[in-house]
Amino acid sequence: MRNIKLTIEYDGSSFNGWQKQPNKLNIQGEIEKAIETVTGKKVELIGSGRTDAGVHAFAQVANFKIDSDFPIEKVAIALNSQLKKSICIKKAEEVSEDFHSRYHCHQKTYGYIIDNSKQGTAIYRNLVYHVSQMLDTKAMQEAANYLIGEHDFSSFKSSGTSSKSSVRTIYAAQVLKEQERVIIQLTGNGFLYNMVRIIAGTLVEIGLGIKTPEEMKTILEAKDRQQAGKTLPPQGLFLMQVDYEEK
Amino acid sequence: MRNIKLTIEYDGSSFNGWQKQPNKLNIQGEIEKAIETVTGKKVELIGSGRTDAGVHAFAQVANFKIDSDFPIEKVAIALNSQLKKSICIKKAEEVSEDFHSRYHCHQKTYGYIIDNSKQGTAIYRNLVYHVSQMLDTKAMQEAANYLIGEHDFSSFKSSGTSSKSSVRTIYAAQVLKEQERVIIQLTGNGFLYNMVRIIAGTLVEIGLGIKTPEEMKTILEAKDRQQAGKTLPPQGLFLMQVDYEEK
Repeated sequence: MRNIKLTIEYDGSSFNGWQKQPNKLNIQGEIEKAIETVTGKKVELIGSGRTDAGVHAFAQVANFKIDSDFPIEKVAIALNSQLKKSICIKKAEEVSEDFHSRYHCHQKTYGYIIDNSKQGTAIYRNLVYHVSQMLDTKAMQEAANYLIGEHDFSSFKSSGTSSKSSVRTIYAAQVLKEQERVIIQLTGNGFLYNMVRIIAGTLVEIGLGIKTPEEMKTILEAKDRQQAGKTLPPQGLFLMQVDYEEK
Repeated sequence: MRNIKLTIEYDGSSFNGWQKQPNKLNIQGEIEKAIETVTGKKVELIGSGRTDAGVHAFAQVANFKIDSDFPIEKVAIALNSQLKKSICIKKAEEVSEDFHSRYHCHQKTYGYIIDNSKQGTAIYRNLVYHVSQMLDTKAMQEAANYLIGEHDFSSFKSSGTSSKSSVRTIYAAQVLKEQERVIIQLTGNGFLYNMVRIIAGTLVEIGLGIKTPEEMKTILEAKDRQQAGKTLPPQGLFLMQVDYEEK
């Protein structure tokens, strides 16, 4: 059996998330259909993890096993010819048979993009969250630094999550200012349900002066969802990168 | 009479261009309607120039005269509350009564954005033109340099234009490479019908090695539309900036 690794970009706006669900438009299902159309074989596409409805990805990773002898360099273009324009296979590679895009994932990077212009943006309206009041990115960065390391992130987890443990490790937490945008970028070994969106919501409150940077530490230690800020909407969230050990 | 200058961002994807036309969705008409809703007065909104169907703007400029005593700092937010999300008033300023956004326009800058990744982009698909073969941006810049100065741009003008003269001055012509994007940026005192899109089409042929950089000079001197490259589609074109003497 060949094992094919895909790197996938998608505009999540019109999808009910990554995961296959009956009667709901989803990214996993659309790609599986395209693979079947191109190769004539039904496969199971394993993603590095789910993304929620409305969330975007620049580089989601997924793999599937198949017994078929197509040339690997034609895979991306063949799948793209079948897919909606809101999904784009950026790369297809042949990997060793034991590669598993979820189990072997080493770290992930998410970005949350805030348009911080006074009036918002027409062109990028479906790809950002708008905050019209000026954000103090220095205070946000100071707060974000408390997240680095291994912590119980229960304060930043929506109920309804199935994960047994709420302990995760954050390797990097950056708050970048690029012209009228503020970008929150988090790299970690895993993320709880809505974790990035709740952290982003908390950082926005800190950037607005509603909370102090030091309160991030108190919130983290409280292990209580009620202490953190609100869950920001999905359209600002991007899965930026998924890394594997072999890299 | 007060004279109000607006700076406007729009996603041109769903519009039949800037100009007011009966039964066709257009940006000018939508903003005039919003002004009427907010102020109760019918006005004529004068744009710095038209943009075609599907073309975007980060900073189109327009002005209108009105006899009404609203506070200027509330204008942008009031109009945005009435407008479709694909139009955003970025700024509203009170200017001297003789200011005319078309007659007094000093120079304009257009950007044409090319996604030069192998497989294209899902997220920005409506905001770029995709070229999968690697573009030689050095050759493109060399060619673009021939455009600088005062020239008769007849070779880069679609028929159906109403301009009397085809002479325009280009002040700056840049070909920028930013990660997987190639951005063609032109600043000039005016542009003929489809001029930027035809120049972009010609530069792409040069970037692909179909034409040499020196051929840009020959094409310019020929004053013959047939010599130039094809007109690229509107979705990659952005009106970036409109400048006035007073600035």
